[in-house]
Amino acid sequence: MALRVGVIGGGQLARMMVPAAIELGLDVRVLAEGQGMSAAIAVTAEGDHRDLDTVLAFARDVDVVTFDHEHVPQDVLRGLVDAGVAVRPGPEALAVAQDKITMRTRLTELGVPVPDWAAVHDQTELGAFLDEHGGRAVVKTARGGYDGKGVRVVTDPSDVDDWFLAVSEAGGDQALLVEELVPFTRELAQSVARRPSGEVVAWPLVETVQRDGVCAEVIAPAPASAGRIADVAESIAVRLAEELRVTGVLAVELFQTDDERILVNELAMRPHNTGHWSIDGSTTSQFEQHLRAVLDLPLGATGMHAPTAVMVNVLGGPADGDLAARYPAALEAFPEAKYHFYGKSPRPGRKVGHVTVIGDDVDDVVWRARSAAEHFAD
Amino acid sequence: MALRVGVIGGGQLARMMVPAAIELGLDVRVLAEGQGMSAAIAVTAEGDHRDLDTVLAFARDVDVVTFDHEHVPQDVLRGLVDAGVAVRPGPEALAVAQDKITMRTRLTELGVPVPDWAAVHDQTELGAFLDEHGGRAVVKTARGGYDGKGVRVVTDPSDVDDWFLAVSEAGGDQALLVEELVPFTRELAQSVARRPSGEVVAWPLVETVQRDGVCAEVIAPAPASAGRIADVAESIAVRLAEELRVTGVLAVELFQTDDERILVNELAMRPHNTGHWSIDGSTTSQFEQHLRAVLDLPLGATGMHAPTAVMVNVLGGPADGDLAARYPAALEAFPEAKYHFYGKSPRPGRKVGHVTVIGDDVDDVVWRARSAAEHFAD
Repeated sequence: MALRVGVIGGGQLARMMVPAAIELGLDVRVLAEGQGMSAAIAVTAEGDHRDLDTVLAFARDVDVVTFDHEHVPQDVLRGLVDAGVAVRPGPEALAVAQDKITMRTRLTELGVPVPDWAAVHDQTELGAFLDEHGGRAVVKTARGGYDGKGVRVVTDPSDVDDWFLAVSEAGGDQALLVEELVPFTRELAQSVARRPSGEVVAWPLVETVQRDGVCAEVIAPAPASAGRIADVAESIAVRLAEELRVTGVLAVELFQTDDERILVNELAMRPHNTGHWSIDGSTTSQFEQHLRAVLDLPLGATGMHAPTAVMVNVLGGPADGDLAARYPAALEAFPEAKYHFYGKSPRPGRKVGHVTVIGDDVDDVVWRARSAAEHFAD
Repeated sequence: MALRVGVIGGGQLARMMVPAAIELGLDVRVLAEGQGMSAAIAVTAEGDHRDLDTVLAFARDVDVVTFDHEHVPQDVLRGLVDAGVAVRPGPEALAVAQDKITMRTRLTELGVPVPDWAAVHDQTELGAFLDEHGGRAVVKTARGGYDGKGVRVVTDPSDVDDWFLAVSEAGGDQALLVEELVPFTRELAQSVARRPSGEVVAWPLVETVQRDGVCAEVIAPAPASAGRIADVAESIAVRLAEELRVTGVLAVELFQTDDERILVNELAMRPHNTGHWSIDGSTTSQFEQHLRAVLDLPLGATGMHAPTAVMVNVLGGPADGDLAARYPAALEAFPEAKYHFYGKSPRPGRKVGHVTVIGDDVDDVVWRARSAAEHFAD
């Protein structure tokens, strides 16, 4: 019988696990939030991932449970473990990815370089941090943020009063995360995968270009990163995967600073937008690798098919919503580009797909990937 | 809305169209013969592909109908066309692939080089052919043969009496195909894809190794084939795609003779075992290309990711039927190999999967692909 992987969440990350599962002969099943999700083709159950009974019923028919997102609550995760379900990554690892203050605390404990930060509960504490950091900082909600949501640059302690109110109403010892505005020259990301037996593999370090807080482009490998920078990034990601006992893919978003330091920005314990290039550019995609890792199968080779791979997100899509109408011109103009769509309806800013091009010359590959993706813009 | 492709037949060829469809954002739906087929994840209807009403009901919800196999009868195909369904490849093209005597007749009309052949109705006609060809020949049933089934080497006119009986009982002007035993040095295969608008693209010519009449290994490109042989093979396949008005993938199986001629052996108007290497070895796989072609979308680039790709079939599988138990050792030994399984239960001689390895040195790549596949042998 085929090995069975259950994925909680029916978004595009679950969707992109499906081709890898089909090829490798795995049985992938998805617990979706509702109808018409990106991963619809593999959905075998619908329900609320915050409800233990729902998740337990889903987990009963699979060999291992993994995730499309980080939103499954700790009590549900621990309930699964208590019931004997293999949950990968496990609750303790996921706790670090689910809460940015927990993440910063753990990273600081581990001595991993991060921006200056503090957990702040009110204007006074935020004001003190601003005073110490030149009057500007970035505030993030500890939970629920993604793609630039829950992130605000502040210059006055009153700039996030709405969030302070929400935090105090939520009760408990909740807080906001405030961080120095890092003078970075560029953003990088390092993905690795680790399996329970301990094996860890890394893909090349990539450069990521964000627009409006959303990943817009990824260049693999990051230009001018050979040597020390790549070594530092890989050693940080490998160490985090091991120390946090991550199983599956770990994506580490990094800042490269003006003075050539590498600081950790964010962690994600699942396939990540910064690794989509690997579907077309690497011997083993992050989606196949995640499945192998959570099943504790030996990991695949992470070499590249060409010297450079560039991924450009399709954000928003055409105003008329008709992506399919754009296929003929795009596919004709760039027959070497690999087009990926997520079965999502276009709307402003939404990630509806991505395009990857591989090749020898980075400038040429960037131009082709951007131009191919542009065919799907409004 | 996503473009919708309906595939008739739920075997491994339909299965391998699914990853390509998911990535490209297409909606793929399969009409399967029954439960538990290879393409189960995409099955939206079950029923008999020989029943027009069943197939029409399935076709109503898709933009184009294509095929996992050649077994849909002509009256059903023509019923679909009469009802306004886009059927690709169409009935006239498929007629050539469905009947080996029709195929030989058309190839001969087109002046394409084929082995000497005749349609024989009885021992007398077969005897005459044997007398003219040194007393040995190969007899094939005109329909229903695949993977060495319906093929017999004969030395006496009575060797296929059972088939003559079946043919005469079937009535009509049916016959058996008899062919000279071609003194070939090796077998080759040339795949191309053509879309209704007329665009045709070709992959590199490949060498195929058959065992017991079944494709066992494929080497892309065929060693020592640059120049005239590759040119001839490509021009034959392109010409056939155009003359026969094939839409989708056309695979042309070829003999290379002792005297360096190229003869056409078989045609298949769908993705074909000899093109599976393209999933991992080419910019555009035969499965993605088939979907693009039948939707009349511009075709993808067919360059290779490495100088050599080698595919080895997993035939039969372990006697205990437990393929999954072989994953750890195989994946650990060859982390660069791409493993593909079809969700089929192992049994002797059955194609249950394949392994592809790409690389620079053909001998090394052959060795690695064979060794990786060997992990799944009994």
